[in-house]
Amino acid sequence: MALFALEEYQTRWKKAQSKMKTAGLDGLLLTQEVDFAYFAGFHTRFWQSPTRPWFLVLPQSGNPIAVIPSIGEHLMRQGVVDNIKTWSAPDLNDDGIGILSQTINNIGFSNIGLPYTMESHLRMPLADFQALQEKLPTVEFRDDANIARDLRMIKSQAEVARIEQACSIAGKAFARVPQTIHKEQSLAQIFRKFQIICLEEGADFIPYLAGALEASGYNDVISPAHDVKGREGDVLMLDTGLIRDGYFCDFNRNFAIGKIDPMVRDAHKILTDVTELAIEHMKIGTAISAIYDLMQKALTQDGFKAGGGRLGHGLGLYLTEWPSIIADEYMPLSDNMVMTIEPSIEMPNGKILVHEDNVVITAMGAKRLTPYYGEMEII
Amino acid sequence: MALFALEEYQTRWKKAQSKMKTAGLDGLLLTQEVDFAYFAGFHTRFWQSPTRPWFLVLPQSGNPIAVIPSIGEHLMRQGVVDNIKTWSAPDLNDDGIGILSQTINNIGFSNIGLPYTMESHLRMPLADFQALQEKLPTVEFRDDANIARDLRMIKSQAEVARIEQACSIAGKAFARVPQTIHKEQSLAQIFRKFQIICLEEGADFIPYLAGALEASGYNDVISPAHDVKGREGDVLMLDTGLIRDGYFCDFNRNFAIGKIDPMVRDAHKILTDVTELAIEHMKIGTAISAIYDLMQKALTQDGFKAGGGRLGHGLGLYLTEWPSIIADEYMPLSDNMVMTIEPSIEMPNGKILVHEDNVVITAMGAKRLTPYYGEMEII
Repeated sequence: MALFALEEYQTRWKKAQSKMKTAGLDGLLLTQEVDFAYFAGFHTRFWQSPTRPWFLVLPQSGNPIAVIPSIGEHLMRQGVVDNIKTWSAPDLNDDGIGILSQTINNIGFSNIGLPYTMESHLRMPLADFQALQEKLPTVEFRDDANIARDLRMIKSQAEVARIEQACSIAGKAFARVPQTIHKEQSLAQIFRKFQIICLEEGADFIPYLAGALEASGYNDVISPAHDVKGREGDVLMLDTGLIRDGYFCDFNRNFAIGKIDPMVRDAHKILTDVTELAIEHMKIGTAISAIYDLMQKALTQDGFKAGGGRLGHGLGLYLTEWPSIIADEYMPLSDNMVMTIEPSIEMPNGKILVHEDNVVITAMGAKRLTPYYGEMEII
Repeated sequence: MALFALEEYQTRWKKAQSKMKTAGLDGLLLTQEVDFAYFAGFHTRFWQSPTRPWFLVLPQSGNPIAVIPSIGEHLMRQGVVDNIKTWSAPDLNDDGIGILSQTINNIGFSNIGLPYTMESHLRMPLADFQALQEKLPTVEFRDDANIARDLRMIKSQAEVARIEQACSIAGKAFARVPQTIHKEQSLAQIFRKFQIICLEEGADFIPYLAGALEASGYNDVISPAHDVKGREGDVLMLDTGLIRDGYFCDFNRNFAIGKIDPMVRDAHKILTDVTELAIEHMKIGTAISAIYDLMQKALTQDGFKAGGGRLGHGLGLYLTEWPSIIADEYMPLSDNMVMTIEPSIEMPNGKILVHEDNVVITAMGAKRLTPYYGEMEII
């Protein structure tokens, strides 16, 4: 059931354990979907249900222990974690806290790290977290020194291949848009049709789709569909994060409904040029802040200016991962980081236009995972 | 952009505020997708991105205040919340905690309630929650007395209509399965095709799909697809939570691949009979525990026994909501609860079979939202 061979997961455990040693952590307590995918090879769309908490304990030495609702036992047994403890959830009296505290107690942790900062949250009820701490008065609950987040940031070759596969599927779907979408359709109809194309091209499912269908640009990039039909001069934007074999792509494409304002075409040209410029400069060791500055400056020309917000981010098991392309992220780019490049431009009409591509950082420079898209295609 | 008229949301605010008064709460601090949908009419698939926190503050009197990343401002302005404060997220130095604490400080709360127990979590980094509490030393952070969860449990007529619409779409999709799915397909191919049918029938998207394709039953109900093709005698199970206009359905169907073991047909008959029995008894005022006992007993016959776990749950903006049909849930059923009925049976071969339907509780009894499905159809 796990996506990769056991060795891939063992490498992840060992890397985490080495970092735990450095940070003085006896163990990690993980509760999020992404952690179960990364460390346990556990994939299910059942995370949609908020009812039950799931716990993964990774000690500084030895194999991880899954403390999970019994509904997940059979699926977990097909993965890479052997040590599985279950309870029948939901249990109004004790929803796993007894068995989890006992597990932690038996290992004899003096402290345990939890994902603590940006891009993380604790996926369990606050009352139960409090009860857990009370049951373990000698265990110090600490931040995890970003171990899980930092590890996920650098992909293995196997992971890069999965992301490339997702990008390829979305690329084929986008390529079919001009032949498949008609200008008489509403954005809601287009969203349905586009998801159908993605599935036909091999997506397992499409967790993320946002877009716009508006005259000469749009105002935001996170909107759901609406029932208004397109009109001549509109921009159709589709931004998708589809999953194949557990990994995301995350990129968009802009299309012209008939004849559009030349200003929009100019803006799109700047966006694709800025993307190419970023790709050229995204080399191992380059500070992310330098890429941000470069893009930011290049976006400001001829009455156009940068649209605000970050200009890209990491990508993998989640739609958006660490790091962000922002002004004060001084981290150098590393081999096997997978990043989105996402320039946003504000046009003289006050609307924005955004273009997004995905790359992997390699010794040869940034390598495209998404197909090149130049001029906006016409619908 | 909001799904309903302003009055629907105002009613929700007032009901919450009345409960806050009773519980002695000055305000609520909400961070989850479901709360933004319920109280702000804010719908976006952007929750897929874990990067940014979102905050909704509902004071005991007055209108809610959204403290959100600026990327969401335009979309939020189209909804029902007027008071919107933003920051440019992600901000490595202060990701909204300064502006949120200032907002809470300005209202002058002495305490604030957070969703605290089962089915809730705090969707923000723990470090930021700690920083927030430190910035507001005179504000007591408390449990929210389950106000948000309890309110969502009882649906308005407008909400029931949305859920019924989602059920109807999935019902049409399931009805097309025998004509559309071929026994030569793998479960992965079937999953893709089924999602395409759901979209064709009007689903906005399909957040949840799990299933099985195995000889004479299955071992769990949360598995993702695999590449193994079906064989004569297999059971194909598809369990979907699709969304139309913001609301979920959640039900499954079992199909026979060719000629199956009569034992499986017998088990299926028990499941559909038990579902009908539950529907007959789910009247306003009946304790949920009584429904559980009734179903549990009826599942145990002729070598079959109940499959374990809960036998149904609430449903609405989330795939699974409060309450659960379990032995120690003594809450009486109320008018306008929307519930799944989900009997699970263990067969003499050790495998399970699960059947699920959705109903709304009314003064006339439990009303089906999903079409009746009797004998397993054959593929």
